[in-house]
Amino acid sequence: MDKVRMTLDECRDLAIEVLTRHGCDERNARAIAATITAAERDRCHSHGLFRLPGYVTSLRNGKVNGRAAPRVERLAPSVVRVHGDRGYTPLAHEIGRAPLVDAVRETGMAALAITRTHHFAALWPETQGLAELGFVAFAFTSSPPYLAPAGGKTRFFGTNPMSFAWPRRDKPPMAFDQASAAMARGEIQIAARDGRQVPDGVGIDGDGNPTNDPEEILEGAQLPFGGYKGSSIALMVDLLAGPLIGEVCSFEAGEQDNHDGSAATGGELILALDPARFGGDDAIDHGERLFARMLALEGVRLPGDRRLIARAETPEAGIEIPQVLHEKIQELRTD
Amino acid sequence: MDKVRMTLDECRDLAIEVLTRHGCDERNARAIAATITAAERDRCHSHGLFRLPGYVTSLRNGKVNGRAAPRVERLAPSVVRVHGDRGYTPLAHEIGRAPLVDAVRETGMAALAITRTHHFAALWPETQGLAELGFVAFAFTSSPPYLAPAGGKTRFFGTNPMSFAWPRRDKPPMAFDQASAAMARGEIQIAARDGRQVPDGVGIDGDGNPTNDPEEILEGAQLPFGGYKGSSIALMVDLLAGPLIGEVCSFEAGEQDNHDGSAATGGELILALDPARFGGDDAIDHGERLFARMLALEGVRLPGDRRLIARAETPEAGIEIPQVLHEKIQELRTD
Repeated sequence: MDKVRMTLDECRDLAIEVLTRHGCDERNARAIAATITAAERDRCHSHGLFRLPGYVTSLRNGKVNGRAAPRVERLAPSVVRVHGDRGYTPLAHEIGRAPLVDAVRETGMAALAITRTHHFAALWPETQGLAELGFVAFAFTSSPPYLAPAGGKTRFFGTNPMSFAWPRRDKPPMAFDQASAAMARGEIQIAARDGRQVPDGVGIDGDGNPTNDPEEILEGAQLPFGGYKGSSIALMVDLLAGPLIGEVCSFEAGEQDNHDGSAATGGELILALDPARFGGDDAIDHGERLFARMLALEGVRLPGDRRLIARAETPEAGIEIPQVLHEKIQELRTD
Repeated sequence: MDKVRMTLDECRDLAIEVLTRHGCDERNARAIAATITAAERDRCHSHGLFRLPGYVTSLRNGKVNGRAAPRVERLAPSVVRVHGDRGYTPLAHEIGRAPLVDAVRETGMAALAITRTHHFAALWPETQGLAELGFVAFAFTSSPPYLAPAGGKTRFFGTNPMSFAWPRRDKPPMAFDQASAAMARGEIQIAARDGRQVPDGVGIDGDGNPTNDPEEILEGAQLPFGGYKGSSIALMVDLLAGPLIGEVCSFEAGEQDNHDGSAATGGELILALDPARFGGDDAIDHGERLFARMLALEGVRLPGDRRLIARAETPEAGIEIPQVLHEKIQELRTD
C-alpha cells in the first residue's frame, strides 16, 4: 500500500484546517486535533487521521456541534460533571480536567462525568494525562451496539472500552485502553479496508454464526474478549458511562443514532485517585519494583509499551498514512 | 460422591464452633462464618465450607490472628483505611463499612483500603452489601502468584479477582466477581479433588506447556482470561490492592507466605459511588431498562444470576457438602 509521510506538526495542522473548514471553532478543532495527533504519534492509526472523514461527516450533517461550549458543574465534593453541549469529547475533557484535579486534591478521589458528547477517540489520553499528574486513573465509555453479550447472537453492548493508568517514576505512565470486544472495532475496520481476515472469536455474522470475515462481522456482531468475563466488563462500562451519569446505554445510543459512521452521543466516566492519600507511602516506587520484576520474565511486556516505543520515534521519524486516506483528506481541504 | 445435607443455620454454627475452637474470638468467628455461609447459601462451594480446613490451618500455625482487632482511620474525605491486625478480612470489612458509607454520603464517592488482612473468601459479599444500600461498588484483591502474565511461562500475578455490583429496584443487586484467571483457583482445586480435567486455556504446567490436568496447573501456572486483556486487569488489580494502599504485590505475598494452603497476607481496595450524586436522576430505573432489554435476548443471562437462584432455594432446601469434607470438618470439632 502506498504511504504518505508527514510530521506530527503537519498532522495537527491538517486536522485543525479540515475540522475548522467543516464547522469547528478553533478551540474545538484544536482539542480534537490534539487527540488525533496523539494517536498518530503513538501509531494508534485506528484513532488517528483515519477518523478525520468521520468527524467531518458528523459536523456537516449537524449531528455534532463543532462550536460546543461545555459547562462544568460540581455535583458533590468528589463528583464533577461536564455538560458537553453536543460537541466532541476532547474539549469537554479539557475543560473538566482542572476541576477534577481540584476535587481529587481535596478529597483523595474524584470522578468526572462527561455527558452530551460524542466520543470518537481512544480513552488512554484521558487516563494517561491524569497519571502524568501523579494520579491513578480509570476511564469508561460506551458506544452504539456492536457487541453480542456472552451467549447472545445479536448486538447489544458497545465495544465499551475501559482504560487504566498508573504513574511511573521518571517515565510516561503505564496505561492500558482495551475494548470489551475481542478486537477493537477500529482494527476490524482497518482489516476490512486492507482485505485481511481476522482471528477466530472476534465476531459473528448477521445470523449469529462465527466468521473470520471483517465485513461480515461489521454487519453482524463482535464478540467480547474472554467470554462471559469480558461480557461482564462490557455491562459494567454500559452502566457506568450511561445510567450512573444520566447518559444513554449502548442500546439507546444505537436507537438515537443517524448511523453516519461517526460517534453517537454518549457519556464517559473518569475516576482519579491520589496515591498520596491512600496510605501507600511509596506507591510509585513500589509500582516500579512490580514493573521491574514483571519485565524480567521471559516473553512479558507492559501494556501500552508499543505506544511508548512509537512515541519516542515519531517526533523525529514522522508518521505514515495510506495514500488513499491522504487523498480523501486532501479532498476535505477544498470540498 | 456421597453428600451430607445441612441447613444454613447448621452451616454457620458449625463454622463458628470450629473457628472458635481453633483460635478465633467470637466476633472474628462470626464474621468469617457469615461469609462461608453466604457462599454456601449461593452454592459457591469453592468459597464455602470447603475453605474451613484452610482457615483452621492458618489459625493453628499462627499465620493469621484469630483475635484481630481492626482499626479504622480516615486518610482523606473520600478515603478510609482499616488496618486488619493480621486477621481474616471479614471483620476488617465489617468494621470499615460504616465509615465508608459515611464518606460516600459526604463526598459522593469513597474508597475503603483494607490492609494487613488475609482474604480467603469471595469478593461479591463486599460489593453486594454496598449495592444493597444503593451504592455502585467495586472491589479488588490480589493473592500470591498463581497466574502467568500474557506471553509468560511462570507465575507472577495472583488470581486477582475484581467484583462490581449495581443496585437493583426491588431485587438483589447485580454483582459479578471474576478472577483475572481463565478459571478461579478454587474451581481448579475442586476439579483436582474430583478428578476432572479442565478446559483448554486454563493453565500451563511447570515447564510452561499447555495442559488440561488441574494438578499440573496447580503446580505450574494459571493463565489469564482473554489473553493480554485479562493480563492487564490482573496487573491493575495488583497495583490497586498492593502499592496504592501500602500493601504487598502478588509476588511479594508469595515470597512472604508460608504456603500452608490458606490466604497470604494482602490488601483489598473497595470503591463505592453514590448514584444519587452522579447526575443520573433515575439511575436505578434506567439500569432496570438495560437489564430488561438484555434479558430479552436469546441465550443471555445476567452475571451472578445462578447465585441468586441458589439464594432463593437454599434457605428452604438446605445445602449439600461432600461426605469426605464433612468428615474432615467433624474431626476439626474435636481435634
